[in-house]
Amino acid sequence: MRMPLLVLGLSLSTLPLLAGEGMPDDGIRTFTLENGLEAVVIEDHRTPAVTHMMWYRVGAADDPPGLSGLAHYLEHMMFKGTHNLAEGEFSRIVRENGGEENAFTSYDYTGYFQRIAADRLELVMEMEADRMANLAPPPASAESELAVVMEERRQVVENRPGGIFNEERRAVQFINHPYGRPVIGWMHELENLVIDDFLAFHGEHYAPNNAILIVAGDVTVEEVEELARKHYGPIPDNPDLEPRQRTVIAPQQAARRVEYTDPRVQNPYVIRTYLAEPRRPGDQDEAAALAVLAEVLGNGLTSVLAQELRVKEDFALDVGAYYGDLALDRTTFGVYVTPNPGVTLAEAEARMDQVIADFLATGVDPELLERIKTRLRAAEIYARDNIGGRARQIGAALTAGLDVEDVRAWPEALAAVTAEDVMAAAHEVFRPEASVTGWLRGTGEGVEPGEVVFDDTEVSGQ
Amino acid sequence: MRMPLLVLGLSLSTLPLLAGEGMPDDGIRTFTLENGLEAVVIEDHRTPAVTHMMWYRVGAADDPPGLSGLAHYLEHMMFKGTHNLAEGEFSRIVRENGGEENAFTSYDYTGYFQRIAADRLELVMEMEADRMANLAPPPASAESELAVVMEERRQVVENRPGGIFNEERRAVQFINHPYGRPVIGWMHELENLVIDDFLAFHGEHYAPNNAILIVAGDVTVEEVEELARKHYGPIPDNPDLEPRQRTVIAPQQAARRVEYTDPRVQNPYVIRTYLAEPRRPGDQDEAAALAVLAEVLGNGLTSVLAQELRVKEDFALDVGAYYGDLALDRTTFGVYVTPNPGVTLAEAEARMDQVIADFLATGVDPELLERIKTRLRAAEIYARDNIGGRARQIGAALTAGLDVEDVRAWPEALAAVTAEDVMAAAHEVFRPEASVTGWLRGTGEGVEPGEVVFDDTEVSGQ
Repeated sequence: MRMPLLVLGLSLSTLPLLAGEGMPDDGIRTFTLENGLEAVVIEDHRTPAVTHMMWYRVGAADDPPGLSGLAHYLEHMMFKGTHNLAEGEFSRIVRENGGEENAFTSYDYTGYFQRIAADRLELVMEMEADRMANLAPPPASAESELAVVMEERRQVVENRPGGIFNEERRAVQFINHPYGRPVIGWMHELENLVIDDFLAFHGEHYAPNNAILIVAGDVTVEEVEELARKHYGPIPDNPDLEPRQRTVIAPQQAARRVEYTDPRVQNPYVIRTYLAEPRRPGDQDEAAALAVLAEVLGNGLTSVLAQELRVKEDFALDVGAYYGDLALDRTTFGVYVTPNPGVTLAEAEARMDQVIADFLATGVDPELLERIKTRLRAAEIYARDNIGGRARQIGAALTAGLDVEDVRAWPEALAAVTAEDVMAAAHEVFRPEASVTGWLRGTGEGVEPGEVVFDDTEVSGQ
Repeated sequence: MRMPLLVLGLSLSTLPLLAGEGMPDDGIRTFTLENGLEAVVIEDHRTPAVTHMMWYRVGAADDPPGLSGLAHYLEHMMFKGTHNLAEGEFSRIVRENGGEENAFTSYDYTGYFQRIAADRLELVMEMEADRMANLAPPPASAESELAVVMEERRQVVENRPGGIFNEERRAVQFINHPYGRPVIGWMHELENLVIDDFLAFHGEHYAPNNAILIVAGDVTVEEVEELARKHYGPIPDNPDLEPRQRTVIAPQQAARRVEYTDPRVQNPYVIRTYLAEPRRPGDQDEAAALAVLAEVLGNGLTSVLAQELRVKEDFALDVGAYYGDLALDRTTFGVYVTPNPGVTLAEAEARMDQVIADFLATGVDPELLERIKTRLRAAEIYARDNIGGRARQIGAALTAGLDVEDVRAWPEALAAVTAEDVMAAAHEVFRPEASVTGWLRGTGEGVEPGEVVFDDTEVSGQ
């Protein structure tokens, strides 16, 4: 769920002004149907294609206790047939009409999308509405698909040391909160899932008043509204829909550590994460400061960690910093160092600590801060060219409790961050007693490339 | 919930034979009422007193998510009045009749007891039945008692570094399981508890078919059964009672660490715990080996850790080992070292590791094993003299899923443990990747005595 930040190799002086007052129309329109379905339309007529997305305000964090993986399993089962379409027909029809499609599940959302020629929008909308209202996969497919999900888990977790390590770190980071469970589910709980579980979950959460329709591309809001009324309008809302209330993360007073050793690891690394606040509706300034802080510390060779541990000295293969700006509940801020071969993780951690301590003592370099803000601005503007990416940003933001205005205001919030804001955010977030420090170690014979898994919060593909 | 093990300073040669075949009648009788109430009677006519206990098969591990502390809060509210007795009257009547009483809450049980003259048994039974069926505390008492519970939390957790540390260690030990929550509840969740929460919890769980009556002392089983039929018999069972099914602890593949620093700590210590199996119905051999292992490693100056770190060398102020034999789900096995002042916890941990590694390599000293088994045998026999303690052992065992036969068979299981069993148990339990290592540190100005809190699983007193 990290906002993609591009590092641009071209001059920025020719870029248009930052979004905000006086900015051109961004083409984003919204409407809401009587049954509660919210819709966002992004008009963009450069190519005769359209992206149609349905986002549900439900995800792995809403899996009932003991049934981790349910939201993601349901995502798979959405392709297995309805009262009107047989198993696999949805995908076949999209494909035969030249479209592509996929789906993704994270803690706070489950999303489905198709990209297709603009004149086929009604086709995919009709099918998406059908599986919102009429999901009815054959029982045999539930069993076989569960095996597929388990195999997917093997691929993304068991077969990847970083995947296992990420799962272990999340478990101790988010105590008393479903963000501590894996999106894809623990194997021992996947084994228990049955067809009634996901049918009940679908019945409860897949309703128009829990969904956000996003259509982007060569359409007008009027066309989309007309089609949405026709296909989604007749689906009744769920009047018993409960607000998403998760338990509150337990307060942490003791530093936690996780040490995972896996023979497949080639490049060991140390990673430290802290609980942090995400963007809040109408209140994104602290998050903006953390987003800039992550850039200052760890993005690119000019960042503080890279300068100290890679440029001035050849100490580390890789360094980085991370901030997950979108989450309904809480998120993490993290830093990592992958030291050169032969350097211990204890040494790497000590150097990482020293760099951060020095940074807290001396403050942020004003020139670096300006360069980063220019880069963020450029990235935001270039992101507008990626119509699918914009639609995803909006979907992720809205299912994390924000609204379209928050999305619009985010570039301004980033632009307004001062050096004082960055340092205040740094002093706030780096609390040793609320940290989770992870060591991922090998045994000397590793061949796995040194992939750092910061925060695996989404499983995509079906 | 640790079985008290006495270290006896007298010759054991005069002790009677171990319980088992040919043992004398232990005075334990059982019956079950039609509404499902199980009863255990321990006849013991040495003093004209009786202990009356009501144990419910419900505890903090059954607190609904987000409402930690509810079972314990309900325990407090059980003294606040019924349709027949005003707030505080229960306790006043017990006191005026020369009795004493209390209550206790753990993960798997909530228990209430009165000790009183044998001829007043019916009085307390009538009142206990009344609050099982007719709990009705005044709403104002719910609010004021919640403040009392919060103050109790401050006393047993916030005011004790070992209490905070224990809570933090449990949280990372029991991932995806309610044993990771504090029995007394997190403060941020206590704040949300309201009268309807505990009334609903009472209505669901406080029913005869979820309760165990234990009466010990100067009574006969016939007398108890007659009184129980009269007072508990009319209370209807709860036909909708759900079996206690908690989520399964997530598998652990990475060693976890918790480092808590508190200026009040005088004697820092290192403690390491591992998940372990508790006693299972009809299957107590592995647990017996673990119980003996804990004695071998850490109980008394002849134990392995004490010999190496206190007797042969003056390295540690204290050492210990622990095994919690009773739990419905899983339990922990642990070891700790409180090093001499001036020794770092890193050194203490390295020495602890070395002692255990040497023990795993060389095995258990047969003489030590025999001495320990003799001591356990004696402790079991002496425990028979403590009628209240026997009743509590039975209550704790039955609410952990065992039956009276398991309780009877436990001394034999301990007696049958061989050196091979101990070493097999040791090799099984000491898995580094499934450990939680805790460091409790001070800042140099501590005054708190070096109390080691191994496993705070019960809150007692109201």
